[in-house]
Formats: sequence, C-alpha cells, structure tokens
Amino acid sequence: MTKYLLRIEYDGSPFFGWQRQNDVATVQGAIEDALRKMHGGPVTLYGAGRTDTGVHATGQAAHVELRDDFPQRKVADALNFHLRPDPIAVLSADVVPEDFHARFDATERRYRYIIENRRADLTLDYGKAWRVAQKLDQDAMHRAAQYLIGLHDFSTFRDVQCQAKSPVKTLDDITVSRYGSRLEVTVRARSFLHRQVRSIVGSLVEVGRGVQSEAWISKILEAKDRKSCGPVAPCDGLYLEDVIYERLS
Amino acid sequence: MTKYLLRIEYDGSPFFGWQRQNDVATVQGAIEDALRKMHGGPVTLYGAGRTDTGVHATGQAAHVELRDDFPQRKVADALNFHLRPDPIAVLSADVVPEDFHARFDATERRYRYIIENRRADLTLDYGKAWRVAQKLDQDAMHRAAQYLIGLHDFSTFRDVQCQAKSPVKTLDDITVSRYGSRLEVTVRARSFLHRQVRSIVGSLVEVGRGVQSEAWISKILEAKDRKSCGPVAPCDGLYLEDVIYERLS
Repeated sequence: MTKYLLRIEYDGSPFFGWQRQNDVATVQGAIEDALRKMHGGPVTLYGAGRTDTGVHATGQAAHVELRDDFPQRKVADALNFHLRPDPIAVLSADVVPEDFHARFDATERRYRYIIENRRADLTLDYGKAWRVAQKLDQDAMHRAAQYLIGLHDFSTFRDVQCQAKSPVKTLDDITVSRYGSRLEVTVRARSFLHRQVRSIVGSLVEVGRGVQSEAWISKILEAKDRKSCGPVAPCDGLYLEDVIYERLS
Repeated sequence: MTKYLLRIEYDGSPFFGWQRQNDVATVQGAIEDALRKMHGGPVTLYGAGRTDTGVHATGQAAHVELRDDFPQRKVADALNFHLRPDPIAVLSADVVPEDFHARFDATERRYRYIIENRRADLTLDYGKAWRVAQKLDQDAMHRAAQYLIGLHDFSTFRDVQCQAKSPVKTLDDITVSRYGSRLEVTVRARSFLHRQVRSIVGSLVEVGRGVQSEAWISKILEAKDRKSCGPVAPCDGLYLEDVIYERLS
C-alpha cells in the first residue's frame, strides 16, 4: 500500500463536522465515500483532527492508504471528481512514509477566526464569518489575548464534552488584526481542546466590546472554570487553516 | 425630500443583475421593494451603474430621496431589516446635496476580478471566483494588460448588446497580482462598456495560459472588432468594488 497525505478544503456549513457518523453528512464520511468509489472497497481516512459542525477548513490534513498500482498523480483529481457536488476539495495528495500519521505526527495546528465588525447583515460572507455589530477594539483584544500564550490549564476555554485527557496545553501564538471592518484572530498550537478557539474568541469579543477589561482574560484563565468563559463564538467564522508536520519539512 | 447616497454590497448569484425587471429578481428591484415597505409608497433608486446577472458588488452606489422627517440614522438599518433574507446589505446611507446623482456624478469606478488558479473545484469560494485549472503566468498577464491603459476604442472588449454611444473609453489602471493560488485583476476607469472587464479578463487569461502572446492583447485592441476578443470570463469572479465621487471628497 502507498500512504498519501491529503490537504483538504471544505465549507463546513452543510456538514455535521469532520468525524464520520451514521445517518448524517460529515466531511470524513463524504471523503471516505469518494475513496470507496475511486478505489473500490472500504478505505479509512485518518484526519489530523476533528472540526465541529459548521466549522470550515482551508488546510485540513488527513492520511489514507491506497493500492500501490493506483496512479499517484490522479489521486486528487479522481477524489475531487467523486466528491462533487459536495463543497469539499482535495488540494493535494502527496506520498508520505508508511509510518506517517496525520494526527500523531502533527507538530502544529493553525486556526483563523473571522469577525465582520459591522451593522449590516452579511451577504457574500454569509455563513463564513461572525458578524458583530458593536464596534470592537481590536488592540485591546490583541493585548488581552497575550495572557493566553504559553503553558496553561485551559479548563475555562474547554467544552464540557472535550475528550482530551488533560486541559493543559501550550498556546504558541495568538494575534488579533483588523483589515477595515474585518477582524482576524489567528492562533497556533501543537493541539487544541474542544471548542478552545471559539471559547477564546467569544471571550476576547467581550473585551473588544468594552464589557470586560483586558485583565479579565487573565482572571478567567486562572479560574480554570468553564463557567467563567465568555459566550462561545459561532462556528461560521472558524477555519482550520494549516497542520504542520516537522518531519516532512 | 432628503437625498441619500447608499453604499451597497450584494452576492449577485441569485439576481438577474442590478436593473429592475418585471417578474425576475434583481438587486434594484429588491432594494426598491424594501424602500417601499420602509417608506410607504413607491421610491425610485438610481444606481451608479448596472451590474450583469451574477456579478457581485462590495461597493455599489445608488441615490434615493426620502421624506425629510425620515430618521436619517435609521435608513441603513431599516432597509437591511426589510431586505432580509436577500443577500443585499446597505453598508451606509449618507445625506448628499439635492442635485447629486449617483450615476452622472461618478468620477471613477473600480472593479476586481478574482481567479482561483487551481485544479480542485471551489468550495468556500464557489460562485465567488473563476477557477482556472491551467497554471497562469500572472506577470505576462500584467504586462499584457498595460497595453490597455489610456484612451482607446474598446470595441473588441464590448458586448454586442452594449448601449453606450461610443466605444471610446479611458482605462486609468489595470493590475494583475497573485496571492498564492489567487489572482486578482483590478481595474479603474471613469466608466466601462458592457462586459468590458470580463472581456478583458478572459483575453488576459489566454495570455496567462500561454495560448496567446502579450502583444496579442495590443493586436486585438487595435482590431476594434468584437470577434477578436478572447472568451468572456464568467460572472462569478467579478466585483464592483467602489464608485468614486470627487465632489463628495
């Protein structure tokens, strides 16, 4: 068998998240269906991580094993053919070592969260960003976000359904930038807890609105208590942007 | 009466263009319906220019007259309320002089055309960009585009249904830039002929694909003949981005 690393983009809106489930449309399920049609017989896809219902990806990663005689250069095109009309695209399919694992070998994950800070409803970006009508102070949000960098117990920013063994994670980078009416929050870490990014973004927006102080972010982090978290930001604005593999670089 | 300049964003996909028509959904028609509900009685909207079926806008401009007692600060919000769920948003509504005209006072129009230069089908950008699978040489496209700058007879790049009196126009600026797999063509002129931008972009893509030389753009421009034009680019990638009014600045 030959192992491939797939780079995958999807519009998460019509899917019940990444992970295969019976009776509902998921991204993994759709790609495995396409793999079955392309390859003949069942094929299991191993994702770098799950994304929630409605969350998008521009750079999800997953590995899959195919027969050695399958033409390598045709994997992406053939999968994309069978994926139509689902809004999922395989951007590339590269051969990787046979012991490679998309989840366990990932050394960094990058997410981007897009906020449209304006009064008018979204049109072109409908379902692709979180509209926040009240004027946000992106500089205050950025400064408050810096409290989260480093090794912390992120229990406050962790969904109650999170299955991770430990709430302790290292956040490597978080940046809040404004481009006109658009705010972008980018985060980097080896791994994330369930709903961690949306919990952080929702809390930062409370700071941006002036409802909470910058230091409040430090206080709720220290509380290590889910009940201290701000409102969780909606799925619409979240994008899994990249998964980094040091061993491949 | 008080005159307002509206700045309007829309997803053109579900509309038969800007201009009001009987029995089909148009952007002007939808906004005039919303104006009627908001204001009571018929209200005419004067756009800076028409956009074709499926063409988007992030900065269309139009003027409208409303009763003097209508609360100025509520115009945009009230219109947006009545526009739901159509993908049209009034970004702002500013009072302008009573002799102002959105079409005749416009001193510059700016369009952006987005090409996704990749093999995979579009997902998040479906209907919002033109996917071109074959690798494009953006530098050749940019150089070729410079032949079009200045005062020319643009008959080659003019739809046969164009109603403009003269095919002679001045193109002030055209730029082709690449950002990863994304190519953006930006153009600026006082006014454009019908389908001029899409005709230009479609022809430039022939150069980018290497099917035609850079000098071919100059040759077809000189031909002043619609039959010399390359394939017209699809509506999906075109955005009316801004309309400039010198008298308001």
